[in-house]
Amino acid sequence: MSLTNTPSANRLHIGIYGRRNSGKSSLINALTGQETALVSDYAGTTTDPVYKAMELHPIGPVMFIDTAGFDDEGELGALRVQRTQETLRKADLALMVFSPDGDFSQEAGWLRELREQNVPVVGVISQADRIPNVIALCEAVQKEFSLSPIVVSAKTREGIPALREAIARAVPEGFEAASITQSLVREGDIVLLVMPQDIQAPKGRLILPQVQTIRDLLDRRCTVVSVTADRLEPALRALKAPPALIITDSQCFEMVHRVKPDETPLTSFSVLFAAYKGDIRAYVEGAAAIDQLTAQSRVLIAEACTHAPLQEDIGRVKIPRALRKRFGESLRVDICAGVDFPVDLTPYDLVIHCGGCMFNRRYVLSRIRQAQAQGVPMTNYGVALAKLTGILDQIVLP
Amino acid sequence: MSLTNTPSANRLHIGIYGRRNSGKSSLINALTGQETALVSDYAGTTTDPVYKAMELHPIGPVMFIDTAGFDDEGELGALRVQRTQETLRKADLALMVFSPDGDFSQEAGWLRELREQNVPVVGVISQADRIPNVIALCEAVQKEFSLSPIVVSAKTREGIPALREAIARAVPEGFEAASITQSLVREGDIVLLVMPQDIQAPKGRLILPQVQTIRDLLDRRCTVVSVTADRLEPALRALKAPPALIITDSQCFEMVHRVKPDETPLTSFSVLFAAYKGDIRAYVEGAAAIDQLTAQSRVLIAEACTHAPLQEDIGRVKIPRALRKRFGESLRVDICAGVDFPVDLTPYDLVIHCGGCMFNRRYVLSRIRQAQAQGVPMTNYGVALAKLTGILDQIVLP
Repeated sequence: MSLTNTPSANRLHIGIYGRRNSGKSSLINALTGQETALVSDYAGTTTDPVYKAMELHPIGPVMFIDTAGFDDEGELGALRVQRTQETLRKADLALMVFSPDGDFSQEAGWLRELREQNVPVVGVISQADRIPNVIALCEAVQKEFSLSPIVVSAKTREGIPALREAIARAVPEGFEAASITQSLVREGDIVLLVMPQDIQAPKGRLILPQVQTIRDLLDRRCTVVSVTADRLEPALRALKAPPALIITDSQCFEMVHRVKPDETPLTSFSVLFAAYKGDIRAYVEGAAAIDQLTAQSRVLIAEACTHAPLQEDIGRVKIPRALRKRFGESLRVDICAGVDFPVDLTPYDLVIHCGGCMFNRRYVLSRIRQAQAQGVPMTNYGVALAKLTGILDQIVLP
Repeated sequence: MSLTNTPSANRLHIGIYGRRNSGKSSLINALTGQETALVSDYAGTTTDPVYKAMELHPIGPVMFIDTAGFDDEGELGALRVQRTQETLRKADLALMVFSPDGDFSQEAGWLRELREQNVPVVGVISQADRIPNVIALCEAVQKEFSLSPIVVSAKTREGIPALREAIARAVPEGFEAASITQSLVREGDIVLLVMPQDIQAPKGRLILPQVQTIRDLLDRRCTVVSVTADRLEPALRALKAPPALIITDSQCFEMVHRVKPDETPLTSFSVLFAAYKGDIRAYVEGAAAIDQLTAQSRVLIAEACTHAPLQEDIGRVKIPRALRKRFGESLRVDICAGVDFPVDLTPYDLVIHCGGCMFNRRYVLSRIRQAQAQGVPMTNYGVALAKLTGILDQIVLP
């Protein structure tokens, strides 16, 4: 019953780090064992970390990132370590599994990096039933890293409840606290949602942002009025007073803007999700760079999904077409997909990122920070489209 | 992106039948090969058929049921054949793969049964590249069963387009044509949906029936007003005219019935889905049997899911409690889950089935027909609850 699961990108992402012999696997087995249900298991390629979605009492929906040992060897090993490195940008929280041999030279480097990136770390000593010197090992970790490791035995399940509690305590403040509609609505508001006439989700479904927005508004005790674009005017007429907010699919923006009551603020699903999944202020600033583009500019389109391009793909067709129409056919557009985001963004005058519905917020923010650090403006699809159609200053931002 | 997939139960279920050496596996590989994407792969237990969800051009979302060879041997083999037998009740359409040895004695029995159960059959000769006597084999099938088999080679992909077209032609008329809200709404209607205050879906989600209903109403160009129960009265006040229909979660039925405008008809998500997934007339007739129950009665509760019971489980707690309160503590309630539906229902005075959201319509209907054939009244959770709370005659049926 996939629909009743929490969206993957909303789960607390827990990276599990350690050397190959540290007991990472038995730790995951212990955590995903009898008391918890393994929801799904995305086996990646041979080099990719494995993502395991589950319910972890008392935390709730989590996504474990099962990484390769960071002492992995050989050419494939190096690639695996690099993939492990990249997960540092996704992990909301890290479990560092210390090896029983007491040599923490590699752990030290990874811990430094995790701390630099503000990832809360829970230290773990796994396979306690197999290690003779557990107490000495704990003391060594404590002394070297000021970290009290949780001692866990997958076999006896000793330490598992303590580990769960330690994870719960380490969840970053504000994780998942945000609402999608944030300051834009108040309890009791009537909010009108406009969907495109040609609903893109398969039969019987709605796309995830629509479902998440409806749920968010119901949680906030709003009245949610949903219509397709062609039914907007009758819906407005059916209400005694104008709605407190209209949220529209970007595709219908111009029509909705023309038809809506003057006093009703307007925003779009993409702008709401730009804020929910990223940094709306940074995106609006980044979008300002669109005005500075020329026929010689170079723009990077970054997609989270590696799906086959759609016919009227926003990133591959619509945005490049709009940019070239305005600045000339010679404007260069590069496209990257999935995790292949360039380390060096400086060749670009602008980065335009997708909505990132498949990424967690931490990872999207890490890309925004990377662009900022390199002085490259970055915006996203929804905000760029609003800018290109001249409506960015006519919508409300959360 | 599970949310963007068609619900499993809505997919056209295609059973693949044949003996062990008939080339069933290579047929599935050919169908799920280059041109199509395998969406997911539910590996069952060693005895269960494997369900494979995919998009099959030009049909759309389908669910292949990969069955064991019906000549499977040994104790486990017999169990596997029994499981294959059970899939006949789920298959909206069957592919019968004829063995290349020309001995169709077993095929004949299975074909007879498929035809008795009105399952459209597409005949297939698989592995055509390996069989010397394809033409003679086709003629034999045609002569014996009045069926023109499609000749397919997984290796050369010969015949695959023809097979897809044959499947498309064989899709039963009316499959998926039904709307959830059916005759209850017209284009342009305002429809009010009432969700429980304590939304049961995980954070960020809605339960499947709510999503499917919203989508159905948007497809029919209705204005969909969604509220939690506590916001129903303000939502009604915000509308210039009463809504054309109110659909409520069963939990809030009594409150909604009390508050709603007299002229607005009321129904519930469970009743809509009882009609969408089963036979609402049969269920209403079955529910009449509730009035005839006594302290000596025996009731079967049948659940589609084998999930761990919820705290206030409708089937395991609420309905038995309501029945015992009315008819006495000695009323006996048996519970069956998943595919373990008894062959003999005659020990029971009433069968109460769950909503069946995990079953396809054909399978739910086959259980209704089974109960009817044995003269045992059968209803479902939603209709039974409406009956028990005395509101069944106050709601509108699709």
